[in-house]
Amino acid sequence: MTGDETTDSPTSVAVLGTGAIGTAVTRALRRAGFRVIVWNRTPERARAALDHGARRAETATDALDADIAILALSDGQAVLDVLGAVATVLAGKVVVALGTVSPHEAEAAADLAERAGGDYLGVGLQHGPEQIGSFEVQLPVGGRDDVLDRARPVLEVIGSVRHVGTGAGAAAMWDLALFGIWYDAHLGLLRAFDNVRSAGVDIAAFAEAARVQLQYVVEGAEGAATELVSHQYPAGPADLRQHAPVVEALADLRQGSTLGDGGLVAVQRLLEVRIGEGWADAGLTALLAGSREQAGA
Amino acid sequence: MTGDETTDSPTSVAVLGTGAIGTAVTRALRRAGFRVIVWNRTPERARAALDHGARRAETATDALDADIAILALSDGQAVLDVLGAVATVLAGKVVVALGTVSPHEAEAAADLAERAGGDYLGVGLQHGPEQIGSFEVQLPVGGRDDVLDRARPVLEVIGSVRHVGTGAGAAAMWDLALFGIWYDAHLGLLRAFDNVRSAGVDIAAFAEAARVQLQYVVEGAEGAATELVSHQYPAGPADLRQHAPVVEALADLRQGSTLGDGGLVAVQRLLEVRIGEGWADAGLTALLAGSREQAGA
Repeated sequence: MTGDETTDSPTSVAVLGTGAIGTAVTRALRRAGFRVIVWNRTPERARAALDHGARRAETATDALDADIAILALSDGQAVLDVLGAVATVLAGKVVVALGTVSPHEAEAAADLAERAGGDYLGVGLQHGPEQIGSFEVQLPVGGRDDVLDRARPVLEVIGSVRHVGTGAGAAAMWDLALFGIWYDAHLGLLRAFDNVRSAGVDIAAFAEAARVQLQYVVEGAEGAATELVSHQYPAGPADLRQHAPVVEALADLRQGSTLGDGGLVAVQRLLEVRIGEGWADAGLTALLAGSREQAGA
Repeated sequence: MTGDETTDSPTSVAVLGTGAIGTAVTRALRRAGFRVIVWNRTPERARAALDHGARRAETATDALDADIAILALSDGQAVLDVLGAVATVLAGKVVVALGTVSPHEAEAAADLAERAGGDYLGVGLQHGPEQIGSFEVQLPVGGRDDVLDRARPVLEVIGSVRHVGTGAGAAAMWDLALFGIWYDAHLGLLRAFDNVRSAGVDIAAFAEAARVQLQYVVEGAEGAATELVSHQYPAGPADLRQHAPVVEALADLRQGSTLGDGGLVAVQRLLEVRIGEGWADAGLTALLAGSREQAGA
Protein backbone atom coordinates (compact mmCIF):
# COMPACT_ATOMS: atom_id res chain seq x y z
CA MET A 1 0.00 0.00 0.00
CA THR A 2 1.21 3.53 -0.74
CA GLY A 3 0.50 7.21 -0.29
CA ASP A 4 -2.60 8.40 1.49
CA GLU A 5 -4.66 5.22 1.25
CA THR A 6 -6.30 4.34 4.51
CA THR A 7 -4.85 1.33 6.32
CA ASP A 8 -5.68 -0.59 9.44
CA SER A 9 -5.01 1.47 12.52
CA PRO A 10 -2.64 3.10 13.22
CA THR A 11 -3.02 5.02 9.97
CA SER A 12 -1.14 8.11 10.99
CA VAL A 13 2.00 8.78 12.95
CA ALA A 14 3.50 12.02 14.24
CA VAL A 15 7.27 12.40 13.97
CA LEU A 16 8.52 15.16 16.26
CA GLY A 17 12.05 16.13 15.33
CA THR A 18 13.19 15.88 11.72
CA GLY A 19 16.93 15.59 11.96
CA ALA A 20 18.67 12.72 10.16
CA ILE A 21 16.95 10.04 12.27
CA GLY A 22 13.47 11.62 12.18
CA THR A 23 13.71 12.06 8.40
CA ALA A 24 14.83 8.44 7.91
CA VAL A 25 11.95 7.26 10.13
CA THR A 26 9.50 9.38 8.11
CA ARG A 27 10.73 7.86 4.85
CA ALA A 28 10.44 4.30 6.21
CA LEU A 29 6.91 4.96 7.52
CA ARG A 30 5.80 6.56 4.25
CA ARG A 31 7.13 3.58 2.27
CA ALA A 32 5.11 1.29 4.54
CA GLY A 33 1.95 3.27 3.78
CA PHE A 34 1.51 5.30 6.96
CA ARG A 35 0.32 8.87 6.93
CA VAL A 36 2.99 10.96 8.64
CA ILE A 37 2.69 14.38 10.27
CA VAL A 38 6.07 15.96 10.99
CA TRP A 39 7.09 18.84 13.21
CA ASN A 40 10.39 20.51 13.95
CA ARG A 41 11.11 23.39 16.30
CA THR A 42 12.94 24.97 13.34
CA PRO A 43 10.39 24.67 10.46
CA GLU A 44 13.04 24.69 7.66
CA ARG A 45 14.52 21.55 9.18
CA ALA A 46 11.33 19.66 8.30
CA ARG A 47 11.89 20.05 4.54
CA ALA A 48 13.69 16.74 3.89
CA ALA A 49 10.91 14.87 5.68
CA LEU A 50 8.26 16.63 3.54
CA ASP A 51 10.03 15.32 0.39
CA HIS A 52 8.89 11.85 1.42
CA GLY A 53 5.24 12.95 1.30
CA ALA A 54 4.76 13.82 4.97
CA ARG A 55 2.47 16.64 6.08
CA ARG A 56 3.93 19.40 8.25
CA ALA A 57 2.26 20.53 11.48
CA GLU A 58 2.61 24.17 12.57
CA THR A 59 2.99 23.25 16.22
CA ALA A 60 3.94 20.15 18.17
CA THR A 61 0.39 20.14 19.57
CA ASP A 62 -1.08 20.09 16.03
CA ALA A 63 1.12 17.09 15.16
CA LEU A 64 -0.51 15.09 17.98
CA ASP A 65 -3.53 14.65 15.74
CA ALA A 66 -1.98 11.15 15.27
CA ASP A 67 -2.43 8.30 17.77
CA ILE A 68 1.28 7.56 17.96
CA ALA A 69 4.01 10.14 18.27
CA ILE A 70 7.65 9.29 17.66
CA LEU A 71 10.07 11.65 19.35
CA ALA A 72 13.35 11.69 17.39
CA LEU A 73 15.09 14.39 19.39
CA SER A 74 18.68 15.18 20.27
CA ASP A 75 18.63 14.26 23.95
CA GLY A 76 16.62 13.57 27.10
CA GLN A 77 16.11 17.22 27.93
CA ALA A 78 14.58 17.86 24.48
CA VAL A 79 12.20 14.91 25.10
CA LEU A 80 11.09 16.44 28.41
CA ASP A 81 10.67 19.90 26.83
CA VAL A 82 8.53 18.65 23.93
CA LEU A 83 6.40 16.43 26.20
CA GLY A 84 5.75 19.45 28.40
CA ALA A 85 4.64 21.45 25.35
CA VAL A 86 2.13 18.82 24.15
CA ALA A 87 0.83 17.72 27.58
CA THR A 88 -2.69 19.07 26.93
CA VAL A 89 -3.24 16.75 23.93
CA LEU A 90 -1.52 13.56 25.14
CA ALA A 91 -4.59 11.76 26.52
CA GLY A 92 -4.97 8.37 24.82
CA LYS A 93 -1.77 8.74 22.78
CA VAL A 94 1.35 6.59 22.73
CA VAL A 95 4.64 8.49 22.87
CA VAL A 96 7.70 6.64 21.55
CA ALA A 97 11.01 8.28 22.51
CA LEU A 98 13.64 7.02 20.07
CA GLY A 99 17.35 7.34 20.88
CA THR A 100 19.79 7.52 23.76
CA VAL A 101 18.50 9.16 26.93
CA SER A 102 19.44 8.34 30.51
CA PRO A 103 17.28 5.84 32.44
CA HIS A 104 16.32 8.68 34.81
CA GLU A 105 15.24 10.93 31.94
CA ALA A 106 13.22 8.08 30.44
CA GLU A 107 11.41 7.55 33.74
CA ALA A 108 10.75 11.29 34.14
CA ALA A 109 9.40 11.44 30.58
CA ALA A 110 7.14 8.43 31.19
CA ASP A 111 5.79 10.10 34.34
CA LEU A 112 5.06 13.28 32.42
CA ALA A 113 3.26 11.40 29.63
CA GLU A 114 1.24 9.30 32.06
CA ARG A 115 0.15 12.25 34.18
CA ALA A 116 -1.21 13.76 30.92
CA GLY A 117 -3.21 10.56 30.24
CA GLY A 118 -0.84 9.15 27.62
CA ASP A 119 1.50 6.17 27.48
CA TYR A 120 5.26 6.04 26.97
CA LEU A 121 7.77 3.70 25.37
CA GLY A 122 11.52 4.24 25.60
CA VAL A 123 13.30 2.82 22.55
CA GLY A 124 17.09 2.55 22.18
CA LEU A 125 18.85 3.16 18.88
CA GLN A 126 22.55 2.53 18.26
CA HIS A 127 22.35 2.63 14.46
CA GLY A 128 22.75 5.47 11.98
CA PRO A 129 19.99 7.00 9.79
CA GLU A 130 21.10 5.09 6.70
CA GLN A 131 20.20 1.80 8.43
CA ILE A 132 16.72 2.82 9.60
CA GLY A 133 14.09 0.53 8.10
CA SER A 134 16.40 -2.49 7.81
CA PHE A 135 16.06 -5.69 9.76
CA GLU A 136 19.53 -5.23 11.33
CA VAL A 137 18.41 -2.22 13.34
CA GLN A 138 17.87 -3.48 16.89
CA LEU A 139 15.22 -1.59 18.81
CA PRO A 140 15.32 -2.42 22.53
CA VAL A 141 11.96 -1.27 23.93
CA GLY A 142 11.10 -0.45 27.54
CA GLY A 143 7.44 -0.08 28.56
CA ARG A 144 4.22 -1.97 29.23
CA ASP A 145 3.32 -4.90 26.96
CA ASP A 146 -0.09 -3.51 26.00
CA VAL A 147 1.44 -0.18 25.03
CA LEU A 148 4.07 -1.93 22.91
CA ASP A 149 1.29 -3.92 21.20
CA ARG A 150 -0.27 -0.64 20.05
CA ALA A 151 3.04 0.75 18.73
CA ARG A 152 4.46 -2.48 17.33
CA PRO A 153 3.24 -2.07 13.70
CA VAL A 154 4.96 1.32 13.59
CA LEU A 155 8.17 0.18 15.31
CA GLU A 156 8.54 -2.87 13.08
CA VAL A 157 8.83 -0.53 10.12
CA ILE A 158 11.88 1.06 11.78
CA GLY A 159 13.73 -2.10 12.85
CA SER A 160 13.67 -5.34 14.84
CA VAL A 161 11.68 -4.89 18.03
CA ARG A 162 13.01 -6.41 21.26
CA HIS A 163 10.99 -5.90 24.43
CA VAL A 164 13.64 -5.63 27.14
CA GLY A 165 11.64 -4.56 30.17
CA THR A 166 8.35 -3.10 31.41
CA GLY A 167 9.99 -0.01 32.94
CA ALA A 168 10.31 3.11 30.79
CA GLY A 169 14.06 3.24 31.51
CA ALA A 170 14.80 -0.37 30.53
CA ALA A 171 15.83 0.41 26.94
CA ALA A 172 18.03 3.31 28.06
CA MET A 173 19.70 1.01 30.58
CA TRP A 174 20.17 -1.71 27.94
CA ASP A 175 21.81 0.80 25.58
CA LEU A 176 24.06 2.37 28.22
CA ALA A 177 25.07 -1.01 29.64
CA LEU A 178 26.13 -2.17 26.16
CA PHE A 179 28.19 0.98 25.76
CA GLY A 180 29.71 0.23 29.18
CA ILE A 181 30.81 -3.23 28.04
CA TRP A 182 32.53 -1.69 25.06
CA TYR A 183 34.31 0.98 27.12
CA ASP A 184 35.47 -1.34 29.91
CA ALA A 185 36.83 -3.92 27.47
CA HIS A 186 38.36 -1.48 25.01
CA LEU A 187 39.93 0.69 27.72
CA GLY A 188 41.25 -2.53 29.29
CA LEU A 189 42.95 -3.33 26.00
CA LEU A 190 44.51 0.14 25.85
CA ARG A 191 45.71 -0.18 29.48
CA ALA A 192 47.36 -3.49 28.62
CA PHE A 193 49.04 -2.01 25.53
CA ASP A 194 50.25 0.90 27.66
CA ASN A 195 51.71 -1.53 30.25
CA VAL A 196 53.52 -3.83 27.86
CA ARG A 197 55.02 -1.03 25.78
CA SER A 198 56.52 0.37 28.99
CA ALA A 199 58.35 -3.00 29.34
CA GLY A 200 59.61 -2.89 25.76
CA VAL A 201 57.17 -5.54 24.52
CA ASP A 202 56.14 -5.44 20.85
CA ILE A 203 52.51 -4.24 20.97
CA ALA A 204 51.56 -5.83 17.65
CA ALA A 205 52.73 -9.27 18.85
CA PHE A 206 50.91 -8.78 22.15
CA ALA A 207 47.67 -7.85 20.35
CA GLU A 208 47.30 -11.43 19.12
CA ALA A 209 47.52 -12.79 22.69
CA ALA A 210 45.09 -10.04 23.74
CA ARG A 211 42.52 -11.28 21.22
CA VAL A 212 42.76 -14.80 22.62
CA GLN A 213 42.34 -13.48 26.17
CA LEU A 214 39.29 -11.39 25.24
CA GLN A 215 37.77 -14.35 23.47
CA TYR A 216 37.72 -16.19 26.84
CA VAL A 217 35.56 -13.36 28.21
CA VAL A 218 33.21 -13.55 25.20
CA GLU A 219 32.82 -17.27 25.79
CA GLY A 220 32.18 -16.70 29.50
CA ALA A 221 29.43 -14.09 29.03
CA GLU A 222 26.47 -16.45 29.00
CA GLY A 223 27.89 -18.52 31.86
CA ALA A 224 28.19 -15.44 34.06
CA ALA A 225 24.59 -14.49 33.21
CA THR A 226 23.43 -17.99 34.22
CA GLU A 227 25.32 -17.70 37.51
CA LEU A 228 23.59 -14.42 38.34
CA VAL A 229 20.14 -15.77 37.47
CA SER A 230 20.63 -19.00 39.42
CA HIS A 231 22.51 -17.39 42.34
CA GLN A 232 25.20 -20.08 41.98
CA TYR A 233 28.79 -18.86 41.71
CA PRO A 234 31.16 -21.78 40.99
CA ALA A 235 34.85 -20.87 41.23
CA GLY A 236 35.77 -21.82 37.65
CA PRO A 237 39.42 -20.97 36.86
CA ALA A 238 39.94 -19.14 40.19
CA ASP A 239 38.06 -18.40 43.41
CA LEU A 240 37.90 -15.02 45.15
CA ARG A 241 40.85 -15.94 47.42
CA GLN A 242 42.97 -16.53 44.29
CA HIS A 243 41.68 -13.44 42.49
CA ALA A 244 42.60 -11.11 45.38
CA PRO A 245 46.42 -11.10 45.01
CA VAL A 246 46.24 -10.78 41.21
CA VAL A 247 43.83 -7.83 41.41
CA GLU A 248 46.10 -6.29 44.04
CA ALA A 249 49.18 -6.71 41.82
CA LEU A 250 47.31 -5.18 38.88
CA ALA A 251 45.96 -2.27 40.91
CA ASP A 252 49.52 -1.57 42.13
CA LEU A 253 50.89 -1.79 38.59
CA ARG A 254 48.33 0.75 37.38
CA GLN A 255 49.01 3.39 40.03
CA GLY A 256 49.74 6.65 38.26
CA SER A 257 49.32 5.20 34.77
CA THR A 258 47.73 7.27 31.99
CA LEU A 259 44.37 5.52 31.83
CA GLY A 260 43.99 5.06 35.58
CA ASP A 261 43.39 1.86 37.49
CA GLY A 262 40.20 0.79 35.73
CA GLY A 263 38.41 0.85 39.07
CA LEU A 264 40.48 -2.08 40.39
CA VAL A 265 41.18 -0.45 43.77
CA ALA A 266 37.42 -0.42 44.41
CA VAL A 267 37.16 -4.02 43.21
CA GLN A 268 40.05 -4.98 45.51
CA ARG A 269 38.14 -3.58 48.51
CA LEU A 270 34.97 -5.38 47.43
CA LEU A 271 36.90 -8.64 47.15
CA GLU A 272 38.01 -8.24 50.76
CA VAL A 273 34.43 -7.60 51.88
CA ARG A 274 33.07 -10.63 50.02
CA ILE A 275 35.85 -12.91 51.31
CA GLY A 276 35.01 -11.66 54.79
CA GLU A 277 31.37 -12.58 54.17
CA GLY A 278 32.36 -16.16 53.40
CA TRP A 279 32.55 -16.15 49.58
CA ALA A 280 36.30 -17.01 49.40
CA ASP A 281 35.64 -20.27 47.50
CA ALA A 282 33.22 -18.74 44.98
CA GLY A 283 33.96 -17.36 41.51
CA LEU A 284 34.20 -13.71 40.46
CA THR A 285 30.46 -13.34 39.80
CA ALA A 286 29.96 -13.66 43.58
CA LEU A 287 31.09 -10.02 43.75
CA LEU A 288 27.47 -9.29 42.73
CA ALA A 289 25.94 -11.71 45.25
CA GLY A 290 23.09 -10.12 47.18
CA SER A 291 23.44 -9.54 50.89
CA ARG A 292 20.68 -12.08 51.64
CA GLU A 293 22.36 -14.85 49.69
CA GLN A 294 24.28 -17.48 51.60
CA ALA A 295 27.96 -18.06 50.95
CA GLY A 296 29.10 -21.66 50.60
CA ALA A 297 27.06 -24.69 49.50
CA MET B 1 66.84 -40.50 24.13
CA THR B 2 66.03 -41.65 27.64
CA GLY B 3 67.31 -42.02 31.18
CA ASP B 4 70.85 -41.05 32.08
CA GLU B 5 72.38 -41.15 28.60
CA THR B 6 74.61 -38.19 27.91
CA THR B 7 73.18 -35.59 25.54
CA ASP B 8 74.42 -32.38 23.95
CA SER B 9 74.72 -29.57 26.48
CA PRO B 10 72.85 -28.70 28.57
CA THR B 11 72.78 -32.22 29.91
CA SER B 12 71.60 -31.40 33.38
CA VAL B 13 69.03 -29.00 34.80
CA ALA B 14 68.28 -27.99 38.38
CA VAL B 15 64.61 -27.65 39.34
CA LEU B 16 64.24 -25.64 42.54
CA GLY B 17 60.76 -26.07 43.93
CA THR B 18 58.89 -29.34 43.41
CA GLY B 19 55.27 -28.38 43.78
CA ALA B 20 52.82 -29.36 41.02
CA ILE B 21 54.56 -27.19 38.41
CA GLY B 22 58.14 -28.16 39.36
CA THR B 23 57.20 -31.84 39.32
CA ALA B 24 55.53 -31.54 35.92
CA VAL B 25 58.60 -29.71 34.58
CA THR B 26 60.86 -32.45 35.97
CA ARG B 27 58.80 -35.16 34.27
CA ALA B 28 58.88 -33.31 30.92
CA LEU B 29 62.65 -32.78 31.16
CA ARG B 30 63.29 -36.41 32.10
CA ARG B 31 61.18 -37.60 29.15
CA ALA B 32 63.30 -35.41 26.87
CA GLY B 33 66.48 -37.02 28.20
CA PHE B 34 67.83 -34.34 30.51
CA ARG B 35 69.47 -35.17 33.81
CA VAL B 36 67.49 -33.35 36.51
CA ILE B 37 68.57 -32.38 40.03
CA VAL B 38 65.66 -31.32 42.23
CA TRP B 39 65.53 -29.46 45.49
CA ASN B 40 62.68 -28.43 47.77
CA ARG B 41 62.84 -26.49 51.01
CA THR B 42 60.68 -29.29 52.46
CA PRO B 43 62.51 -32.49 51.35
CA GLU B 44 59.39 -34.74 51.44
CA ARG B 45 57.83 -32.49 48.80
CA ALA B 46 60.51 -33.60 46.32
CA ARG B 47 59.26 -37.22 46.33
CA ALA B 48 56.96 -37.01 43.28
CA ALA B 49 59.77 -35.46 41.24
CA LEU B 50 62.13 -38.30 42.24
CA ASP B 51 59.59 -40.81 40.84
CA HIS B 52 60.43 -39.46 37.40
CA GLY B 53 64.10 -40.37 37.87
CA ALA B 54 65.43 -37.08 39.11
CA ARG B 55 68.24 -36.86 41.61
CA ARG B 56 67.65 -34.93 44.84
CA ALA B 57 70.06 -32.27 46.11
CA GLU B 58 70.43 -31.76 49.86
CA THR B 59 70.67 -27.99 49.52
CA ALA B 60 69.74 -25.42 46.89
CA THR B 61 73.46 -24.71 46.50
CA ASP B 62 74.16 -28.38 45.74
CA ALA B 63 71.45 -28.36 43.06
CA LEU B 64 73.30 -25.58 41.21
CA ASP B 65 75.73 -28.24 39.98
CA ALA B 66 73.69 -27.84 36.77
CA ASP B 67 74.23 -25.04 34.24
CA ILE B 68 70.58 -24.07 34.14
CA ALA B 69 68.33 -23.69 37.16
CA ILE B 70 64.57 -23.50 36.84
CA LEU B 71 62.89 -21.79 39.77
CA ALA B 72 59.31 -23.12 40.08
CA LEU B 73 58.39 -21.29 43.26
CA SER B 74 55.20 -19.91 44.74
CA ASP B 75 55.84 -16.18 44.31
CA GLY B 76 58.34 -13.41 43.72
CA GLN B 77 59.49 -13.27 47.33
CA ALA B 78 60.38 -16.98 47.25
CA VAL B 79 62.41 -16.35 44.05
CA LEU B 80 64.37 -13.57 45.81
CA ASP B 81 64.92 -15.74 48.91
CA VAL B 82 66.24 -18.74 46.96
CA LEU B 83 68.47 -16.59 44.74
CA GLY B 84 69.95 -15.03 47.86
CA ALA B 85 70.66 -18.53 49.23
CA VAL B 86 72.49 -19.73 46.09
CA ALA B 87 74.30 -16.46 45.26
CA THR B 88 77.77 -17.93 45.92
CA VAL B 89 77.38 -20.57 43.18
CA LEU B 90 75.53 -18.56 40.49
CA ALA B 91 78.54 -17.50 38.41
CA GLY B 92 78.11 -18.67 34.81
CA LYS B 93 74.66 -20.15 35.44
CA VAL B 94 71.32 -19.27 33.83
CA VAL B 95 68.42 -18.84 36.25
CA VAL B 96 64.94 -19.27 34.76
CA ALA B 97 62.15 -18.00 37.04
CA LEU B 98 58.94 -19.70 35.93
CA GLY B 99 55.57 -18.31 36.98
CA THR B 100 53.82 -15.10 37.95
CA VAL B 101 55.92 -12.49 39.72
CA SER B 102 55.60 -8.72 39.50
CA PRO B 103 57.74 -6.83 36.95
CA HIS B 104 59.53 -5.16 39.89
CA GLU B 105 60.32 -8.50 41.54
CA ALA B 106 61.59 -9.87 38.23
CA GLU B 107 63.93 -6.90 37.86
CA ALA B 108 65.16 -7.24 41.45
CA ALA B 109 65.76 -10.97 40.92
CA ALA B 110 67.68 -10.31 37.67
CA ASP B 111 69.84 -7.76 39.51
CA LEU B 112 70.59 -10.27 42.24
CA ALA B 113 71.51 -13.01 39.74
CA GLU B 114 73.70 -10.68 37.66
CA ARG B 115 75.57 -9.29 40.65
CA ALA B 116 76.43 -12.94 41.49
CA GLY B 117 77.79 -13.43 37.95
CA GLY B 118 74.77 -15.34 36.62
CA ASP B 119 72.09 -14.57 34.05
CA TYR B 120 68.33 -14.37 34.49
CA LEU B 121 65.26 -15.09 32.41
CA GLY B 122 61.73 -14.25 33.57
CA VAL B 123 59.22 -16.70 32.10
CA GLY B 124 55.43 -16.34 32.41
CA LEU B 125 53.15 -19.33 32.87
CA GLN B 126 49.36 -19.18 32.81
CA HIS B 127 48.79 -22.91 32.36
CA GLY B 128 48.28 -25.72 34.86
CA PRO B 129 50.73 -28.58 35.61
CA GLU B 130 48.77 -31.09 33.50
CA GLN B 131 49.52 -29.03 30.38
CA ILE B 132 53.28 -28.67 30.97
CA GLY B 133 55.20 -30.20 28.10
CA SER B 134 52.50 -29.62 25.49
CA PHE B 135 52.81 -27.27 22.56
CA GLU B 136 49.80 -25.21 23.77
CA VAL B 137 51.71 -23.92 26.81
CA GLN B 138 52.78 -20.37 25.95
CA LEU B 139 56.00 -19.29 27.62
CA PRO B 140 56.54 -15.53 27.30
CA VAL B 141 60.23 -14.94 28.05
CA GLY B 142 61.90 -11.71 29.17
CA GLY B 143 65.70 -11.43 29.07
CA ARG B 144 68.70 -11.07 26.77
CA ASP B 145 68.71 -12.97 23.46
CA ASP B 146 72.02 -14.74 24.13
CA VAL B 147 70.80 -15.94 27.52
CA LEU B 148 67.58 -17.24 25.97
CA ASP B 149 69.65 -19.07 23.34
CA ARG B 150 71.39 -21.01 26.13
CA ALA B 151 68.11 -21.91 27.88
CA ARG B 152 66.00 -22.51 24.77
CA PRO B 153 66.53 -26.31 24.51
CA VAL B 154 65.30 -26.65 28.09
CA LEU B 155 62.36 -24.22 27.72
CA GLU B 156 61.13 -25.84 24.50
CA VAL B 157 60.56 -29.03 26.46
CA ILE B 158 58.17 -27.14 28.73
CA GLY B 159 56.14 -25.25 26.10
CA SER B 160 56.19 -22.82 23.17
CA VAL B 161 58.82 -20.15 23.72
CA ARG B 162 57.96 -16.54 22.88
CA HIS B 163 60.63 -13.90 23.44
CA VAL B 164 58.60 -10.84 24.46
CA GLY B 165 61.32 -8.41 25.57
CA THR B 166 64.95 -8.01 26.61
CA GLY B 167 64.09 -6.73 30.10
CA ALA B 168 63.80 -9.25 32.93
CA GLY B 169 60.31 -7.88 33.75
CA ALA B 170 58.91 -8.14 30.22
CA ALA B 171 57.32 -11.57 30.71
CA ALA B 172 55.83 -10.55 34.06
CA MET B 173 54.36 -7.47 32.40
CA TRP B 174 53.00 -9.54 29.49
CA ASP B 175 51.33 -11.95 31.95
CA LEU B 176 49.89 -9.23 34.19
CA ALA B 177 48.68 -7.17 31.23
CA LEU B 178 46.83 -10.22 29.88
CA PHE B 179 45.22 -10.74 33.29
CA GLY B 180 44.26 -7.05 33.21
CA ILE B 181 42.46 -7.48 29.89
CA TRP B 182 40.50 -10.35 31.37
CA TYR B 183 39.56 -8.44 34.53
CA ASP B 184 38.58 -5.20 32.79
CA ALA B 185 36.42 -7.00 30.22
CA HIS B 186 34.87 -9.52 32.61
CA LEU B 187 34.18 -6.94 35.31
CA GLY B 188 32.67 -4.73 32.59
CA LEU B 189 30.32 -7.56 31.73
CA LEU B 190 29.33 -7.97 35.39
CA ARG B 191 28.74 -4.19 35.71
CA ALA B 192 26.46 -4.29 32.68
CA PHE B 193 24.53 -7.29 34.07
CA ASP B 194 24.19 -5.43 37.39
CA ASN B 195 22.85 -2.34 35.59
CA VAL B 196 20.31 -4.06 33.40
CA ARG B 197 18.94 -6.27 36.15
CA SER B 198 18.27 -3.11 38.20
CA ALA B 199 16.01 -2.01 35.29
CA GLY B 200 14.16 -5.35 35.21
CA VAL B 201 15.89 -6.54 32.03
CA ASP B 202 16.28 -10.30 31.48
CA ILE B 203 20.01 -10.89 32.01
CA ALA B 204 20.11 -14.04 29.91
CA ALA B 205 18.61 -12.20 26.89
CA PHE B 206 21.03 -9.33 27.41
CA ALA B 207 24.03 -11.71 27.52
CA GLU B 208 23.59 -12.44 23.82
CA ALA B 209 23.78 -8.73 22.95
CA ALA B 210 26.76 -8.45 25.31
CA ARG B 211 28.63 -11.14 23.35
CA VAL B 212 28.08 -9.23 20.11
CA GLN B 213 29.33 -6.03 21.74
CA LEU B 214 32.47 -7.72 23.14
CA GLN B 215 33.15 -9.25 19.75
CA TYR B 216 33.52 -5.71 18.35
CA VAL B 217 36.32 -5.12 20.88
CA VAL B 218 38.02 -8.40 19.93
CA GLU B 219 37.92 -7.35 16.29
CA GLY B 220 39.30 -3.92 17.16
CA ALA B 221 42.30 -5.18 19.17
CA GLU B 222 44.80 -5.35 16.32
CA GLY B 223 43.61 -2.03 14.87
CA ALA B 224 44.20 -0.27 18.21
CA ALA B 225 47.69 -1.79 18.39
CA THR B 226 48.46 -0.51 14.88
CA GLU B 227 47.25 2.98 15.87
CA LEU B 228 49.59 3.03 18.87
CA VAL B 229 52.57 1.84 16.84
CA SER B 230 51.96 4.28 13.97
CA HIS B 231 50.88 7.19 16.22
CA GLN B 232 47.80 7.65 14.03
CA TYR B 233 44.44 7.78 15.82
CA PRO B 234 41.56 7.86 13.32
CA ALA B 235 38.15 8.54 14.89
CA GLY B 236 36.46 5.34 13.71
CA PRO B 237 32.91 5.02 15.12
CA ALA B 238 33.28 8.08 17.37
CA ASP B 239 35.78 10.84 18.12
CA LEU B 240 36.79 12.03 21.60
CA ARG B 241 34.19 14.82 21.49
CA GLN B 242 31.47 12.19 20.94
CA HIS B 243 32.89 9.79 23.53
CA ALA B 244 32.89 12.43 26.29
CA PRO B 245 29.10 12.67 26.94
CA VAL B 246 28.64 8.88 26.79
CA VAL B 247 31.48 8.28 29.26
CA GLU B 248 30.00 11.00 31.48
CA ALA B 249 26.54 9.36 31.38
CA LEU B 250 28.06 5.97 32.20
CA ALA B 251 30.21 7.33 35.03
CA ASP B 252 27.08 8.98 36.49
CA LEU B 253 25.08 5.76 36.13
CA ARG B 254 27.76 3.81 38.01
CA GLN B 255 27.99 6.14 41.01
CA GLY B 256 27.48 4.04 44.13
CA SER B 257 27.03 0.78 42.23
CA THR B 258 28.40 -2.48 43.64
CA LEU B 259 31.36 -2.91 41.30
CA GLY B 260 32.31 0.78 41.22
CA ASP B 261 32.73 3.02 38.20
CA GLY B 262 35.37 0.93 36.38
CA GLY B 263 37.70 3.91 36.50
CA LEU B 264 35.46 5.95 34.16
CA VAL B 265 35.64 9.13 36.26
CA ALA B 266 39.43 9.16 35.68
CA VAL B 267 38.88 8.45 31.98
CA GLN B 268 36.34 11.30 31.82
CA ARG B 269 38.95 13.72 33.20
CA LEU B 270 41.57 12.42 30.75
CA LEU B 271 39.11 12.91 27.86
CA GLU B 272 38.75 16.57 28.86
CA VAL B 273 42.53 17.00 28.99
CA ARG B 274 43.04 15.39 25.55
CA ILE B 275 40.22 17.42 23.99
CA GLY B 276 41.84 20.53 25.45
CA GLU B 277 45.14 19.47 23.83
CA GLY B 278 43.46 19.37 20.40
CA TRP B 279 42.60 15.67 20.02
CA ALA B 280 38.80 16.20 19.84
CA ASP B 281 38.56 14.72 16.32
CA ALA B 282 40.72 11.66 17.10
CA GLY B 283 39.61 8.19 18.20
CA LEU B 284 39.76 6.67 21.69
CA THR B 285 43.34 5.39 21.29
CA ALA B 286 44.46 9.05 21.32
CA LEU B 287 43.96 8.88 25.10
CA LEU B 288 47.41 7.22 25.06
CA ALA B 289 48.97 9.77 22.70
CA GLY B 290 52.36 10.97 23.94
CA SER B 291 52.74 14.56 25.03
CA ARG B 292 55.15 15.26 22.13
CA GLU B 293 52.74 14.01 19.49
CA GLN B 294 50.79 16.56 17.49
CA ALA B 295 47.01 16.59 17.50
CA GLY B 296 45.26 16.94 14.13
CA ALA B 297 46.63 16.05 10.68
